[in-house]
Amino acid sequence: MKNIILIGSGNVATHLGINLKNNNFNIVQVISSTLKNAETLATKLDSDFSNNISDLKKADLIIVAVSDNEIGNVANQIINTPIVHTSGSVGLEVFKNNNNAGVFYPLQTFNTNVEVAFKEVPICIEANNKDFEKEIIKLAQNISENVVKMDSKQRKQLHIAAVFSCNFTNQMFAISDDILEKSNIEFKLLLPLIKQTVNKLKTKKAIEVQTGPAKRKDLEIIKQHLNLISNKKNKEIYKLISESIIKTHE
Amino acid sequence: MKNIILIGSGNVATHLGINLKNNNFNIVQVISSTLKNAETLATKLDSDFSNNISDLKKADLIIVAVSDNEIGNVANQIINTPIVHTSGSVGLEVFKNNNNAGVFYPLQTFNTNVEVAFKEVPICIEANNKDFEKEIIKLAQNISENVVKMDSKQRKQLHIAAVFSCNFTNQMFAISDDILEKSNIEFKLLLPLIKQTVNKLKTKKAIEVQTGPAKRKDLEIIKQHLNLISNKKNKEIYKLISESIIKTHE
Repeated sequence: MKNIILIGSGNVATHLGINLKNNNFNIVQVISSTLKNAETLATKLDSDFSNNISDLKKADLIIVAVSDNEIGNVANQIINTPIVHTSGSVGLEVFKNNNNAGVFYPLQTFNTNVEVAFKEVPICIEANNKDFEKEIIKLAQNISENVVKMDSKQRKQLHIAAVFSCNFTNQMFAISDDILEKSNIEFKLLLPLIKQTVNKLKTKKAIEVQTGPAKRKDLEIIKQHLNLISNKKNKEIYKLISESIIKTHE
Repeated sequence: MKNIILIGSGNVATHLGINLKNNNFNIVQVISSTLKNAETLATKLDSDFSNNISDLKKADLIIVAVSDNEIGNVANQIINTPIVHTSGSVGLEVFKNNNNAGVFYPLQTFNTNVEVAFKEVPICIEANNKDFEKEIIKLAQNISENVVKMDSKQRKQLHIAAVFSCNFTNQMFAISDDILEKSNIEFKLLLPLIKQTVNKLKTKKAIEVQTGPAKRKDLEIIKQHLNLISNKKNKEIYKLISESIIKTHE
């Protein structure tokens, strides 16, 4: 399983492609609906490129890293080559006509031009037969030290948890940034606090180490804070999460 | 300013007391309404203790680290000794009768038995006169490398931002933990993702590095996730923060 085709040219395709190449896999071809994007990634990977699936070359494996709602369409066109997708939320059953199909879900937040320690990234594996499962586990272990088997039902729940822990957490940081900017305070002042919040997770459960006004059920401070938040959506968020914390610690 | 009295025996009083002692300050006395708690902390700090403010000894400075709603009561009883409180949300004006009063707000999440790298903790300073301000800045610099001046209005906004970035973020982790537990998935699988989410803040603004279904405005996945979240409050939180992310990136 040395020769790989990538379908997709976004952040997941890019980070995966680069890490596979760096570990001596051969990226035969990049296919993306936008030819320019296919070319950009193909240049990085020393591979051919196309914007048309009918140009598909021969390979040992096709990795489909496109938007969730486009995976089905790609899956229907590829029947004879072993194939995986990289999505948290799309089930294995999307590959209904392929004898060697699977999921290769890297649990990470990928941005253009932000490096990732790929060896630490959990890769969640599922396949429609044992032999293919073994092959893609072996492939995953070449680029990550954190490979786990997981069925589609579990993977969907994991993806939801990832949205809370990464995207929603990042939105909390974005809201903080906005609040501080309006008061001429630098966001970096919060970094030691954020670092400690995350450090605690290495040894304790989040629920055990909660602090702050909602945990103390300090309704006076919560009221004062709500009065001081001008953005209506942020006020709603403050209220709802404070209620959630109070309920959790009842 | 070598001899210090602590009023309060909670997490802030404990962490501050220990760090002051470790930096050769003398904690004269610990006063706490619960005598047992006063004694526990006093034992760690080699100091006297009492549960009555009328027992107050002589000192260069009194640090009031009690609940926000009790600070006023303490402030009214102490007029002649220099005094600071440690709260993010209580204004300096609480000390209306004291000529040397200030705020000494350590921006950090403190738990019993969880160590803190105190040298990195920002300490936000405010005082009602320049000389006293200088003295408490000097004191703060003995235990932290991150001392900043900040007025009460800014400090209240900073405290709100801290609630979003620490307490609310931690609640996102607690919700994730709950979701994963129900699917027999270990929370530690999320740690590399969380680490990367926070690492990005060192070089990028949070708003610039958002990822995930809401950022992509993938309404299909959002709908699927909402259907898969059983807890009603968590469903509301998912919906509200997703809307917030969509609005932020419009």
